[in-house]
Amino acid sequence: MKYYKCGGETFELTLNPFPFKCKRCKGNEALIEIPSQGIKVCLTCFNQIFENRLKNTIKRYRMFRNAKKVGVFVSGGKDSSALLFSLKKVFPDLTFQAIYLNLGIRYYSDLAEETVRKLCQEIEVPLYVYSLPKEEGFCIDHFVHTMFKNKICSVCGVIKRYLFTKIAKNLSIDVMATGHHLDDTVSTMLTLFFQGDFEGIVRLGPVLPPLYPGQATKVKPFYHTPEKEIFYYTALNKIPVETCTCPHGEITPSKKNKKIIEEWEKENKQFKYQLLSVFLKKLIPLLKTHPDYKFSPSEFKSCVKCGEITSSSDEICSRCKRVSLIEKLEDKKLELTPEKFKEFIENHPKDDWMVFDLREKEDFEKGGFDGALWINPEIVQASYRKLSKLFKPYRNKTLFFYCYTGRLSYLLTLKLRKLGFKAFNISSPERLLTG
Amino acid sequence: MKYYKCGGETFELTLNPFPFKCKRCKGNEALIEIPSQGIKVCLTCFNQIFENRLKNTIKRYRMFRNAKKVGVFVSGGKDSSALLFSLKKVFPDLTFQAIYLNLGIRYYSDLAEETVRKLCQEIEVPLYVYSLPKEEGFCIDHFVHTMFKNKICSVCGVIKRYLFTKIAKNLSIDVMATGHHLDDTVSTMLTLFFQGDFEGIVRLGPVLPPLYPGQATKVKPFYHTPEKEIFYYTALNKIPVETCTCPHGEITPSKKNKKIIEEWEKENKQFKYQLLSVFLKKLIPLLKTHPDYKFSPSEFKSCVKCGEITSSSDEICSRCKRVSLIEKLEDKKLELTPEKFKEFIENHPKDDWMVFDLREKEDFEKGGFDGALWINPEIVQASYRKLSKLFKPYRNKTLFFYCYTGRLSYLLTLKLRKLGFKAFNISSPERLLTG
Repeated sequence: MKYYKCGGETFELTLNPFPFKCKRCKGNEALIEIPSQGIKVCLTCFNQIFENRLKNTIKRYRMFRNAKKVGVFVSGGKDSSALLFSLKKVFPDLTFQAIYLNLGIRYYSDLAEETVRKLCQEIEVPLYVYSLPKEEGFCIDHFVHTMFKNKICSVCGVIKRYLFTKIAKNLSIDVMATGHHLDDTVSTMLTLFFQGDFEGIVRLGPVLPPLYPGQATKVKPFYHTPEKEIFYYTALNKIPVETCTCPHGEITPSKKNKKIIEEWEKENKQFKYQLLSVFLKKLIPLLKTHPDYKFSPSEFKSCVKCGEITSSSDEICSRCKRVSLIEKLEDKKLELTPEKFKEFIENHPKDDWMVFDLREKEDFEKGGFDGALWINPEIVQASYRKLSKLFKPYRNKTLFFYCYTGRLSYLLTLKLRKLGFKAFNISSPERLLTG
Repeated sequence: MKYYKCGGETFELTLNPFPFKCKRCKGNEALIEIPSQGIKVCLTCFNQIFENRLKNTIKRYRMFRNAKKVGVFVSGGKDSSALLFSLKKVFPDLTFQAIYLNLGIRYYSDLAEETVRKLCQEIEVPLYVYSLPKEEGFCIDHFVHTMFKNKICSVCGVIKRYLFTKIAKNLSIDVMATGHHLDDTVSTMLTLFFQGDFEGIVRLGPVLPPLYPGQATKVKPFYHTPEKEIFYYTALNKIPVETCTCPHGEITPSKKNKKIIEEWEKENKQFKYQLLSVFLKKLIPLLKTHPDYKFSPSEFKSCVKCGEITSSSDEICSRCKRVSLIEKLEDKKLELTPEKFKEFIENHPKDDWMVFDLREKEDFEKGGFDGALWINPEIVQASYRKLSKLFKPYRNKTLFFYCYTGRLSYLLTLKLRKLGFKAFNISSPERLLTG
């Protein structure tokens, strides 16, 4: 099994049973090596070790103390899907509520929603879906039209955290579990450390108590679980996960630190745990007991626009500030139907626009759109620097792209928008080519 | 110019004048790019920038305040040699005293001593040489016979720090400057951080005041100077430096962190300064102002063996504990003359020993020692794991090695001793082969 992570990395698992028995139960055939421990075990023992760690983490930090309803935001990715699956298995009598945020990301959000629906049906957990485009009339992709075009992941984080809080309150969720794992925590801590943001590190603990009455407690049951083992658990238990990746996926400093930590781990299997322990047992207690440090914002007020509670020093909360940029847009379009595209080219001189075919060369040669230029579909993977150079001659034109399904050409459209090009995707390309 | 660093890394500098003028003075030809700043300058400007930084660091931390005599321990390596050279140039009227510690490391210490003598003559700084074998009858190499055989660099550090303090006192040195640079500091800080040793980080400041009356103040004038620029300065000013590396050179965690920091630096030229600033401006002040932290040892006493002041909790200081292991040795030999070697083989059955020729194969074939086995001289660079495997069949034998000069075979002898083999080098191999 192969899994494509956000930002381009992949995980792979090929199962070759070992020619000996499980080192733990000594009964079944050994099937998999636990990366963080180096022992080779059978599937049953792997699951037991994984689920025991989850149970112990929840117990150790008293995550579910007095919880009446535990909410799990499921994105369709491996971490949150494995979290919901394992929680339901380990705590069959607890009330869980799955929530899916459909952020309206074209060629992605709807696919992921289907995957989450499938998972929830399988394990019989009620699912609540909140659709950003339906409820609020905009989607994350629209931010490529704003000053945040190169910070989509950061804007998306603000919008999601806002909705997490609001939805949890509306659904009377008192504990909200997220899929943040050991690798996430340690690499983010290291990034914040390098930036000197010690206050940020303190906020990365396993449990975040409510900042004001009515807010849910946020907990991270995978706090001590390595990412690779979550992937193994997902693959071995055939948990439905979305294999398409978000088109906005970026390589962040924290992802770079993950790689550096993995380099260290090659020599010291316990490195992640060791580093976590430096932060949890040395740095954070040092900060928490220091007379000059203060951590929780002292004041909360209601945002004058949306009415939700905010710790922002402004009258308007961070989410509303960002959404107002979208509201000001006259035209949010990133994609045209073949009919609208044809209307455009009929009304504009030939010199003002270009259309590109992103399919295999032989299909283009058999018949592309009249006047289209072929470009190698692999270009979508090129760096921003390279894309910028390649499309420089067309800086002042309106650019249209199509491929087989719309997915690849949409990805390129987004990337070029982030570089400031006036790019559009053509949807339903089959109607373009036959119509 | 090429420079081999301890632990196997190399620095290289090839000068290709740029086809434009120096970006700083606009007068001379641009010759070199300053790595940390990315500007291309002439030799004069490079030296000015380098020396100004040194001057500013000394001023900023008041390193030479009231200094009557500044001591510089020169090892012959690029850092301490460049330090002495630049200090003498920038402060021509200050009294400097160079000190060389000859640690009796075969095929290394005597060579480095010659290099240091040459430097001191050139720049007219008085040199004091302390010879460990002559004064105390042992040398660092002897520790391969003790439990410290795999921690030679650490033992050597203890012995050197002990002698630094003692010699500085005897020579009435009140300020002692060392060649520790930005890369050293930042990578050691990161290593200590990963180990959770926060107290150790505090001790890595630019100035270490005396811990008790009579001790010299220790200062690091290259605290803000990147290692690469020290190498450039050395090469451009043709400062005599020893190019042979210490045979005990090891890859330490701190050297591994240096590489990781360099990975980061590729994307952020200021990364080392940024990280130093996190430690200096955030972590260290946090520790120093924390009510629960204490840093200087509270008690000092005299070692019952050597009489020097120590902060050790034992009666005997760390240096004396280590030296006593050497004193207990009945036989410290690591090297035999050809005559002693022949005496040995005449008195021992053929099955008890092996002799290896480490020269080029064709020279061995022209005539090696009778009964010798040829081994590829490249083997000296092999990992300890590989060496251990290769020599496993000879675990119970006495092993002898020779090469052209004795240097390479001595290096292999040391490595095998660290692995627990009974290995000897044969000195003056020309007498072995012709005699």
